[in-house]
Amino acid sequence: MTVTQRSRIVLFLLPVVLTIARAQTSSEWESRFRGIPSAEKQREYMERLTARPHHLGSPYGRENAQWMLAKFREWGLDATIETFNVLFPSPKERMVELIAPTRYRAALVEPPVAGDPTSSQQSEQLPTYNAYSIDGDVTAPLVYVNYGIPEDYERLERLGISVKGCIVLARYGASWRGIKPKVAAEHGAVGCIIYSDPRDDGYFQGDVFPKGPYRNADGVQRGSVMDMPLYPGDPLTPGVGATGNVQRLPLNEVPTFTRIPVLPISYGDAKPLLEALAGPVAPESWRGALPLTYHIGPGPAMVRLRVISSWDRKDIYNVVVRIPGSTYPDEWILRGNHHDAWVNGAEDPTSGMVAMMEELRAFSELLKQGWRPKRTIVYCAWDAEEQGLIGSVEWAEHHASELTKKAVIYINSDSNGRGFLSMAGSHTLESFINTVAKEIMDPEKKISVWERAKARRLANATGADERKEIRERKDLRIGALGSGSDYTAFLDHLGIASLNLSYGGEEGDGIYHSIYDDFFWFTTFSDSDFVYGRALSQTAGTAVLRLAGADLLPFGFVNLAETVQRYVDELKKLLKSMREDIIERNRQIADSVFFAVDSPRRPTVSPTIEDVPPELDFGPLEKATEALLKSAQQYEDASRAVQESARHLSTRQLRTINEKLIQSERLLTDASGLPGRPWFRHVLYAPGFYTGYGVKTIPGVREAIEQKRWKEAQAEVRRVAGTLVNVARHIDLAADDLSGK
Amino acid sequence: MTVTQRSRIVLFLLPVVLTIARAQTSSEWESRFRGIPSAEKQREYMERLTARPHHLGSPYGRENAQWMLAKFREWGLDATIETFNVLFPSPKERMVELIAPTRYRAALVEPPVAGDPTSSQQSEQLPTYNAYSIDGDVTAPLVYVNYGIPEDYERLERLGISVKGCIVLARYGASWRGIKPKVAAEHGAVGCIIYSDPRDDGYFQGDVFPKGPYRNADGVQRGSVMDMPLYPGDPLTPGVGATGNVQRLPLNEVPTFTRIPVLPISYGDAKPLLEALAGPVAPESWRGALPLTYHIGPGPAMVRLRVISSWDRKDIYNVVVRIPGSTYPDEWILRGNHHDAWVNGAEDPTSGMVAMMEELRAFSELLKQGWRPKRTIVYCAWDAEEQGLIGSVEWAEHHASELTKKAVIYINSDSNGRGFLSMAGSHTLESFINTVAKEIMDPEKKISVWERAKARRLANATGADERKEIRERKDLRIGALGSGSDYTAFLDHLGIASLNLSYGGEEGDGIYHSIYDDFFWFTTFSDSDFVYGRALSQTAGTAVLRLAGADLLPFGFVNLAETVQRYVDELKKLLKSMREDIIERNRQIADSVFFAVDSPRRPTVSPTIEDVPPELDFGPLEKATEALLKSAQQYEDASRAVQESARHLSTRQLRTINEKLIQSERLLTDASGLPGRPWFRHVLYAPGFYTGYGVKTIPGVREAIEQKRWKEAQAEVRRVAGTLVNVARHIDLAADDLSGK
Repeated sequence: MTVTQRSRIVLFLLPVVLTIARAQTSSEWESRFRGIPSAEKQREYMERLTARPHHLGSPYGRENAQWMLAKFREWGLDATIETFNVLFPSPKERMVELIAPTRYRAALVEPPVAGDPTSSQQSEQLPTYNAYSIDGDVTAPLVYVNYGIPEDYERLERLGISVKGCIVLARYGASWRGIKPKVAAEHGAVGCIIYSDPRDDGYFQGDVFPKGPYRNADGVQRGSVMDMPLYPGDPLTPGVGATGNVQRLPLNEVPTFTRIPVLPISYGDAKPLLEALAGPVAPESWRGALPLTYHIGPGPAMVRLRVISSWDRKDIYNVVVRIPGSTYPDEWILRGNHHDAWVNGAEDPTSGMVAMMEELRAFSELLKQGWRPKRTIVYCAWDAEEQGLIGSVEWAEHHASELTKKAVIYINSDSNGRGFLSMAGSHTLESFINTVAKEIMDPEKKISVWERAKARRLANATGADERKEIRERKDLRIGALGSGSDYTAFLDHLGIASLNLSYGGEEGDGIYHSIYDDFFWFTTFSDSDFVYGRALSQTAGTAVLRLAGADLLPFGFVNLAETVQRYVDELKKLLKSMREDIIERNRQIADSVFFAVDSPRRPTVSPTIEDVPPELDFGPLEKATEALLKSAQQYEDASRAVQESARHLSTRQLRTINEKLIQSERLLTDASGLPGRPWFRHVLYAPGFYTGYGVKTIPGVREAIEQKRWKEAQAEVRRVAGTLVNVARHIDLAADDLSGK
Repeated sequence: MTVTQRSRIVLFLLPVVLTIARAQTSSEWESRFRGIPSAEKQREYMERLTARPHHLGSPYGRENAQWMLAKFREWGLDATIETFNVLFPSPKERMVELIAPTRYRAALVEPPVAGDPTSSQQSEQLPTYNAYSIDGDVTAPLVYVNYGIPEDYERLERLGISVKGCIVLARYGASWRGIKPKVAAEHGAVGCIIYSDPRDDGYFQGDVFPKGPYRNADGVQRGSVMDMPLYPGDPLTPGVGATGNVQRLPLNEVPTFTRIPVLPISYGDAKPLLEALAGPVAPESWRGALPLTYHIGPGPAMVRLRVISSWDRKDIYNVVVRIPGSTYPDEWILRGNHHDAWVNGAEDPTSGMVAMMEELRAFSELLKQGWRPKRTIVYCAWDAEEQGLIGSVEWAEHHASELTKKAVIYINSDSNGRGFLSMAGSHTLESFINTVAKEIMDPEKKISVWERAKARRLANATGADERKEIRERKDLRIGALGSGSDYTAFLDHLGIASLNLSYGGEEGDGIYHSIYDDFFWFTTFSDSDFVYGRALSQTAGTAVLRLAGADLLPFGFVNLAETVQRYVDELKKLLKSMREDIIERNRQIADSVFFAVDSPRRPTVSPTIEDVPPELDFGPLEKATEALLKSAQQYEDASRAVQESARHLSTRQLRTINEKLIQSERLLTDASGLPGRPWFRHVLYAPGFYTGYGVKTIPGVREAIEQKRWKEAQAEVRRVAGTLVNVARHIDLAADDLSGK
């Protein structure tokens, strides 16, 4: 690329402009960096890391941590293991038995599969279970509750069905799994069984393992059901690192265990249970792909559910690598991926882990060639993610004060596959990560991964307006982060700007959290030649390298402000449509519409008249958003002016400005946290209390509206508005610094 | 109801105002009429009519006709049997065999079911087959083509799959069955197998027979596959009645046979075939509810399909009853339902047939009490509907000139069930049938069936605009008629205003055209106490009685004109969205979007650049519609003025006006017919050439646009506009007559 070309492009890359304009060598280091990650080495690492089950507390999990530690040190890097001691229940007894009208005892076993060598390591495999289910032994009528999310219970109410005193059978999907027992318990259920329906996760999607990549009749999704939307991490040590000497909650005071026993089962085991249900036929959208008529019950199926765990504490091993910064050693660029798995875990998490390892090897090569990052780079291989993001949460809590001061950004990855780049995270980084994506070559198509992601959005767009925006907007929009991986503590608890990166979408999978997520499966059906693993190394590594070397940190606020404006519009629309829906429903109730359409042979319960939600005053949020947009534009203008005048900023000036940029995301948090869940402090992003992984943006306001707490909604409008006004002022100060005012 | 109440209602019932205002006794006769139909008698008739299989040409079909004749005569009615002699192929040999990679011979048999006495009458049952399939014996690779409609083949093209030289496996649904072999042959297929997928018609919907009403693994949908969108009725005698002496086409010149052999199978028989397919996984919307991964093929499944029929001619028996009119004997009110079935046919058609019988018995009672209709009433129990509307088509063709002169209206019914009134037909009768529906009491809810139908539309409405219209519009909109029952010849060929009435929607069914559609099934799962059969008698009978006794026929043109306006808007939107879609797709092709999103492991074929459809000049249609609306309003004003002034019109004046009203629907036809299918003459309504049953409104224009014949589309715009202008002029004349000008 010639200098002329570059100066033209520079206009579109304002946030990183200082870096590119001055440090001619940065882009040379970048392209040298991108040449290093090796697909073949990722394959070797994966084969080693997934050779045996390596869950929290397993011997092989510890061996993996030590092996990585040795590798990183062999590459000349400063690596250590940080250990925490956390609660980890593992099952002693599990039983799901249909006792009437017929008998069937669920197998609860994933058998070995011929041709898949690690699937036979049964002595080391964690049995199929849901961690942090309470112990229990209940016998009760069964009710099918679809996905078991709140709207499913509204539907049940219309059908006149109560789950009180029953065991619910919910299918995986539509929410994070921990929501299902939580909502079931809120409705009086005494037990919860979760199964993978082949409609969502099995033969309906494609050929099943080992013929194809999808879940077979025996595959079970393990997983944690602790109430992570309350707080993730070690249940015994909320808010502090689970080191040896901290005070721990007694088991009977832990609020994040389930209220009722829970077990996951395969669709092979679910079929006899569903076949034994009578009662109303399930609504069409509730029906899965098993060859039967889905009935809801309750009963005549009567089921016994028994779960007893061994409630032990185990050591966990985070492997942490530091590459010290030359100019700004106290500004940290964090990068992480977990290394623990439910069983052998090739896709989840080793596909991301091996990409991250190759980033580290590439950096060790660059270091040997004389490269030095201006900022400190910290790479973390987390343990115990699967049970509740424990490794990252405990580390973040333990180092909270230092991180709050020093952390610039946290870049996360987890599972990786073939296809399209997925980018999500803080909208202060939206422009930045777009510029990175434009530099990465798609291994299949030889166009940039950004171009390919854009093409996919175009192809999937549903209307002309959406397509116009995709075509004309400088940046592809990035998703907001909810939860489900290790960015959570950094973004939501500490207010550290975060990104989550992965490739995927070309291939399906059906081995999630099963013994079949292993090297054989991954190298047969997923990124078998690891070219997208290499692309992930290049993407995340380029981001780290660029951030570590930037003079002015590439934060941008216009996209943030514009995104917040969209969220505020969404909130207004949400309230408006709730009002309209309730007014309309009340009218239909008054007009006896529910009576008239009801079929005597399939009777339903008419809803009752409900108070119409009040109007809320969104004025404070609208004004705050305007202020934010104005400040954001001023900051952008200021940084553009600096660029255009080629004015030199001293290291000290830059440190002052960068410090403000780093703190800008901190200011998007509120120390008192969200209503009812103070651990979550970000005012823009949180996992939904009733979605678990799925994000709720401006959660304080949105969830108050959704849950019809109107006074709280209005108070949250004011609180968030206050926070945003504060951020706007802070950005003004950064702009002033930049303009030398 | 007091007189005061009635006069208030009268303002809303303008089209029938003269009748109500003058003939005080009409409404007394009406309510007396509605008291007569008996549910218990309908049950008795059904038990008799469905006691044995009674398809075209069967001994019991003839016995049924003779039994009805005797009944009608016993009731004192003038009844005759009119016989035609028509082509009826019945199977001699049928075979579907998977010969590779595994072997499976399809059973092609519906076994008797315990508890269902008539299911064991195997010697009299027509085997499972599709009538008017050509004879053939082909062996070829199998391809799954979803519903086998044109858009499915577009999708196959994108997947790079050709059906040329293959046997297609299509599932029932999304079109009339005859479309499937027609489109398959157009794409080069050599055979066609049609099966009932449990997603659409089986356990996915509900419990299967005999536990529930839905189709079990052995149930097969028989049915005709003659190319009815070209012309229905006896394939040998298009356009004329198939009486003994007319000239018949030689078999090899019949254009309505299929081009390739076809057989229907059960999902029990389809499962091994689908399991034997490889190739790409079917798109999500193509997948059914069988417990397997739906692949498309072609192959490796290799299938042999063999069909050989006995190509016989058979006599058919229409039973026709005439009640002569006292004042206007040459104005005929026609009412029909077929009596033939594929097998025992309790739902289809006996549920409608027995309701119609009770209408006749009620009229015979009224006649005994001194009632006389002003117009002649003609009731027809059609034979041979199932094979291609043959009884009604041959009768309509045979009596075409008399019907063209005399027929006021044809009111059809067919299958009937529990629930909601469904009304479809000529929009000149929209207001009229709404006024009838307001008088009929729903047997379950004790509100009018009109109120109940309205409530259902409200409950199902998707937006505020739709709900507002439902709430505020005087009339519920009625659907336009495509095809699929005996109104077709009357409406589409002869231009006789028609209505089709039925109840349903509360219960599902899965016995359509199988041996299980029988008395046991109907009385167990459907309208078991025949209260909706009685409601149908009351609804259709009230319409007949009111039409037969009206002074001024209750035709209205404002709803017609407004409906035509909606159709014209739809046509404009259709063209606009086709243009936009093609422009967008061309742009995406040019921008390599298809290349970028394509997965190398699931390759697709990029579409090619396509000419953008030209703009069409809809001006003539817009002007014609305006003229029609104006004339319609004038006619409505004139009839209102007559009503308000209580001016007396003589029988002769009324005859003149009524004659114009009767002819108004005739004028909506064009003698040269639709492009490529002259038998269909109505310019507003026709079954789609590629939907079979589903209506295409303003078909000349709409299908030319859909099929991208732009010159024809523009010519049709002009032709239809001319027709509508002509109708408008005609309505002006009727208005003038009414105002005494």
